[in-house]
Amino acid sequence: MPATNRFELANAIRALAMDAVQKANSGHPGMPMGMADIAEVLWNDYLSHNPADTSWANRDRFVVSNGHGSMLLYALLHLTGYPLPMEELKNFRQLHSKTAGHPEYGITPGVETTTGPLGQGLANAVGMALAERVLAARYNRDGHSVVDHYTYVFTGDGCLMEGISHEACSLAGTLGLGKLVVFYDDNNISIDGEVEGWFRDDTPGRFEAYGWQVIRNVDGHNPAEIKKAIDTARATQDKPTLVCCKTIIGFGSPNLQGKEKCHGAPLGEAEIKLVREKLGWTHAPFEIPDEIRAGWNALEKGRQRQQAWTQAFRAYAEKFPEDAADFERRMKGELPANWAATAAATLAEAAKFDKPVATRKASKNVLDALAAGLPELFGGSADLSESNCTDFKGHKAVRHGSLDGNYVNYGVREFGMSAIMNGVALHGGLIPFGGTFLTFSDYARNAVRMAALMKIRSIFVYTHDSIGLGEDGPTHQSVEHVASLRLIPNLNVWRPADQFETAIAWQDAIERKDGPSALALTRQNLVPQAHPESHFTDARRGGYVLWEPAAAAQGILIATGSEVQLAVDSAKKLAEQGVHVRVVSVPCAEIFRRQDAAYRESVLPKALRKRLAIETGVSLYWAGFVGDEGEVLGVDTYGESAPLAAVMKHFGFTVDNVVAKVTALLGK
Amino acid sequence: MPATNRFELANAIRALAMDAVQKANSGHPGMPMGMADIAEVLWNDYLSHNPADTSWANRDRFVVSNGHGSMLLYALLHLTGYPLPMEELKNFRQLHSKTAGHPEYGITPGVETTTGPLGQGLANAVGMALAERVLAARYNRDGHSVVDHYTYVFTGDGCLMEGISHEACSLAGTLGLGKLVVFYDDNNISIDGEVEGWFRDDTPGRFEAYGWQVIRNVDGHNPAEIKKAIDTARATQDKPTLVCCKTIIGFGSPNLQGKEKCHGAPLGEAEIKLVREKLGWTHAPFEIPDEIRAGWNALEKGRQRQQAWTQAFRAYAEKFPEDAADFERRMKGELPANWAATAAATLAEAAKFDKPVATRKASKNVLDALAAGLPELFGGSADLSESNCTDFKGHKAVRHGSLDGNYVNYGVREFGMSAIMNGVALHGGLIPFGGTFLTFSDYARNAVRMAALMKIRSIFVYTHDSIGLGEDGPTHQSVEHVASLRLIPNLNVWRPADQFETAIAWQDAIERKDGPSALALTRQNLVPQAHPESHFTDARRGGYVLWEPAAAAQGILIATGSEVQLAVDSAKKLAEQGVHVRVVSVPCAEIFRRQDAAYRESVLPKALRKRLAIETGVSLYWAGFVGDEGEVLGVDTYGESAPLAAVMKHFGFTVDNVVAKVTALLGK
Repeated sequence: MPATNRFELANAIRALAMDAVQKANSGHPGMPMGMADIAEVLWNDYLSHNPADTSWANRDRFVVSNGHGSMLLYALLHLTGYPLPMEELKNFRQLHSKTAGHPEYGITPGVETTTGPLGQGLANAVGMALAERVLAARYNRDGHSVVDHYTYVFTGDGCLMEGISHEACSLAGTLGLGKLVVFYDDNNISIDGEVEGWFRDDTPGRFEAYGWQVIRNVDGHNPAEIKKAIDTARATQDKPTLVCCKTIIGFGSPNLQGKEKCHGAPLGEAEIKLVREKLGWTHAPFEIPDEIRAGWNALEKGRQRQQAWTQAFRAYAEKFPEDAADFERRMKGELPANWAATAAATLAEAAKFDKPVATRKASKNVLDALAAGLPELFGGSADLSESNCTDFKGHKAVRHGSLDGNYVNYGVREFGMSAIMNGVALHGGLIPFGGTFLTFSDYARNAVRMAALMKIRSIFVYTHDSIGLGEDGPTHQSVEHVASLRLIPNLNVWRPADQFETAIAWQDAIERKDGPSALALTRQNLVPQAHPESHFTDARRGGYVLWEPAAAAQGILIATGSEVQLAVDSAKKLAEQGVHVRVVSVPCAEIFRRQDAAYRESVLPKALRKRLAIETGVSLYWAGFVGDEGEVLGVDTYGESAPLAAVMKHFGFTVDNVVAKVTALLGK
Repeated sequence: MPATNRFELANAIRALAMDAVQKANSGHPGMPMGMADIAEVLWNDYLSHNPADTSWANRDRFVVSNGHGSMLLYALLHLTGYPLPMEELKNFRQLHSKTAGHPEYGITPGVETTTGPLGQGLANAVGMALAERVLAARYNRDGHSVVDHYTYVFTGDGCLMEGISHEACSLAGTLGLGKLVVFYDDNNISIDGEVEGWFRDDTPGRFEAYGWQVIRNVDGHNPAEIKKAIDTARATQDKPTLVCCKTIIGFGSPNLQGKEKCHGAPLGEAEIKLVREKLGWTHAPFEIPDEIRAGWNALEKGRQRQQAWTQAFRAYAEKFPEDAADFERRMKGELPANWAATAAATLAEAAKFDKPVATRKASKNVLDALAAGLPELFGGSADLSESNCTDFKGHKAVRHGSLDGNYVNYGVREFGMSAIMNGVALHGGLIPFGGTFLTFSDYARNAVRMAALMKIRSIFVYTHDSIGLGEDGPTHQSVEHVASLRLIPNLNVWRPADQFETAIAWQDAIERKDGPSALALTRQNLVPQAHPESHFTDARRGGYVLWEPAAAAQGILIATGSEVQLAVDSAKKLAEQGVHVRVVSVPCAEIFRRQDAAYRESVLPKALRKRLAIETGVSLYWAGFVGDEGEVLGVDTYGESAPLAAVMKHFGFTVDNVVAKVTALLGK
């Protein structure tokens, strides 16, 4: 394609971006105008995709980590033929449009991940590139490369200042993810102005220190240089590549280019007129001439590419029918045919498990039982494999040069791990789970939120879940974490009381197709509870009557996790004294809150107003459950460094204290 | 000091660490045994401190960022003469001891910051080193260096894998914090084993890319090499230094050294016996021979050092009496003599402010009024200065080679910023505040928690605080954040409704001496409310009656921030219809919850059971406030990308909807 034509093609992005932002009177024109030339070369000459089928398994993944540049992506999707009509571009940033302020997975066809919170798109992309290599190692055979695609990322200064870029890129370098290609929009500008004052990294040197291939000093407005860089990037298979592109933010704007002012605000009608003159773009807003459309349209190329792959996959399927079927199933996100049977057997086994066990260990027991029949299970830990008990039987660590594994030692990188897991889940073919201490969910919190927002199946394993961890003290003792995770919309937070409830939690987390789950698990041993058949369905509803007194209940004890045994012991003690209280276990409060009114009433009848909720965490969460006449035994300060028993006694988590509280509550 | 003697001195640390961990049957012997030699050289030959006065302003700061190695620090403090008797070491990790599992600021004399959550100690230290340079630039005069100390940090592989190490060290390099010296415990081991599999960074190269001086390949068990490295580090004044020390984790343990097994568990009695033999340490547990004690004791040296500084300071004070008084006041954390008057005038002014204004802008108005009289105010933003309105009148950015400022462009580094702010607060002399969007408080959450745990005065400014930000959409719209921040014990979360409440919030945050505050501020304009004299004290109590109907109230509207105007408008509309409801504004729910019962009853009388809480966030938080007969108008899903008015209407934040809800609630 001749260079002049390329320039016009890129200008179509610039025009759509500046015009859509102007019409919305909101948005970010600077990045799309600055990265348009890179995008044009990448999408027209390299990106292997099919606008007509966004679910094609072997498509290249393209991630805009600097997600405020959403109009660049929308323009690309529209121009290449995705079902994103011009009407949607005109509706940029309007209610229920498909062109939200930042790119949203599941809303806009062709958007591979939701971005905007800086650095996370880059980490998602590392996850996608990892999934690609892991699946390639699992499925490809000599002469049959059914999994073989690139992951391309656009990233700005902001993403590279974020800590998560260190975590994700260090791991990508360590693992040698050679099909990851990152374009750094080195425009010297961030929102506060010229980055010199706060960001003077030698970024190429930094990435070389991570073991990346770095291509320096590429003119991001010169298609030939961009092309050469991409060729070099693709030729290297054992290292990810960073392409450092010198660009001008807001390229084409006579008065605003190169300045932070064009980053996040409309250029204004007057300046837009000047841009049109400078770029020689004579077309009205949202008008794209046919020849430019033709230059961009990727439908036929895409159809051919996917068809070629489909033929190759058919040949593969003939030779390796089981692998092919397995691959297709996994990429659809469907569980194995025998899953229900395995899960049921595991649950039945767990219900019979009668030894005291920490729920972190129970979690490993459950995983050990499930993993063999669930090859897509893809575990890991942020350097706490043994502590988190994530090291299930049959796990095999992914290593540089040996990527055929199902487990990642993520290193001490909680946020990176979580966002990489999200990328793995988005790629498909794997169900990622990863562990850390519950307190350090704080480090990764926004990635958990992003999984919930994107409705994807990431499973977060959080052990050492309360003051019950003992000696490590308040820095490590979660107090507010379970409650505050429960506040994240669409996240299921499980806090199981024994191996049975742990099995329920895992089963639900794995079967769930519309969002992530978090498991809060104990360090300390818990006594198993009795689980009749009815619990098998009721526990799945998030809250259920675990123990009923012999006489009519006068009140209710509500408890979760490690406090369930305390509730049951206390209820039994109270019964001896002629005080009868029901025990309700709430392994997943948010699922329980979503149950129908009749079920909730059957568990927490309005007539039973004397209620005590018991949880080693902030009490406020339970106010709505216990109501005006109830009370909460919680922890509203930080914990204490001391052995388990001493800590529990200090904070009042003893049978004596619960008995006294209930007695007082009932006015006995 | 002869080398053999040095070895014995270091062995005292090793013995105390392994014996205390063994006695507690819990803890981390590996790091103290591995870093003992480095600590011995640093503390005995360089560290300028006085064990008898932990508040000496110009002491060197020493931070153990790999805080699990707490026994190293406790051993050092005990041996050099801090008030930490042997009894406390024997009580390691026991309830109410001064030797918690991880070092805790405010609990143990000489502990400069609470560490354990990896990477944050390093970032705190960057804050301390920054504060030192900023104060030096402000106070020192030719021939008078009253602020002139080093900040030394111990850090392990874990800290350096964490993303926050990138954020903090990149900024430290950019700013050229030359008196920061970091010792990297390069022992090749993290909890999952040999780091090779998950951490292959060229760490020296990485830090050189940040603009640091890097001293490579120092034998961390060779005092002469350590000494030489420290000399080199101290000789360079315009770059921070990373000293890369090759060490052996658990040094001295014949069977466990060099292995992850000695990281976080007692060595066991048998192995401890072997260590004693190997090290030639013949003394019983917790016995330190007199000559070893003498070798460590730093009381006399410390007394002399501090005395010399005190004399120099007296000379300074004679020449610059105002500066000296100002310095002493600020280092004590006391506010200026005229503070109360300035604050009162600002509040009175704010009460009269009668134009619609976004609370982020109101915050700048308040800061503009306060800053001139409060030179210790030390602002900043994570690359959102204009958006956060943190760029107060008279702010001056700190830059490389020009550190005499009161503002930091932190770059896109929310977590790093927050932990650096904590370090600045810990250092003293400055009151740090820093801004980002509320949603990105997620990125920094554990640093906010650490500020609350340490009870220090960091002030977090969070703008764009709800769905009210409009077009940027769900990735940027906070929904659960205000509620989940409120769950962090000892954090005051303010969500002011107008400029008056914003002034209240700032005044409280600045006057508060026992913890951090967060301000959640709007992007959009809010209508000012009427504030009679009584509000001046009542609003400070976190919740108060803002508006009372003409007739006896039948119910209560509870609201915060941007929803207060909606509540007042709705109450007025209801009054027109003969329905009378009180409006309660709750700018800081956690302070209100701490008020005495009588005050709370006066605001939310038990008799008024029909209550509607209105907040553009998760509804669950308000359950306890509205009670069994109340209701909450909240947002329990993610937001939407659209203009403000469309978003508010979509989620039901309109007068019509509130009126309808109240009418239904009252059964009208």
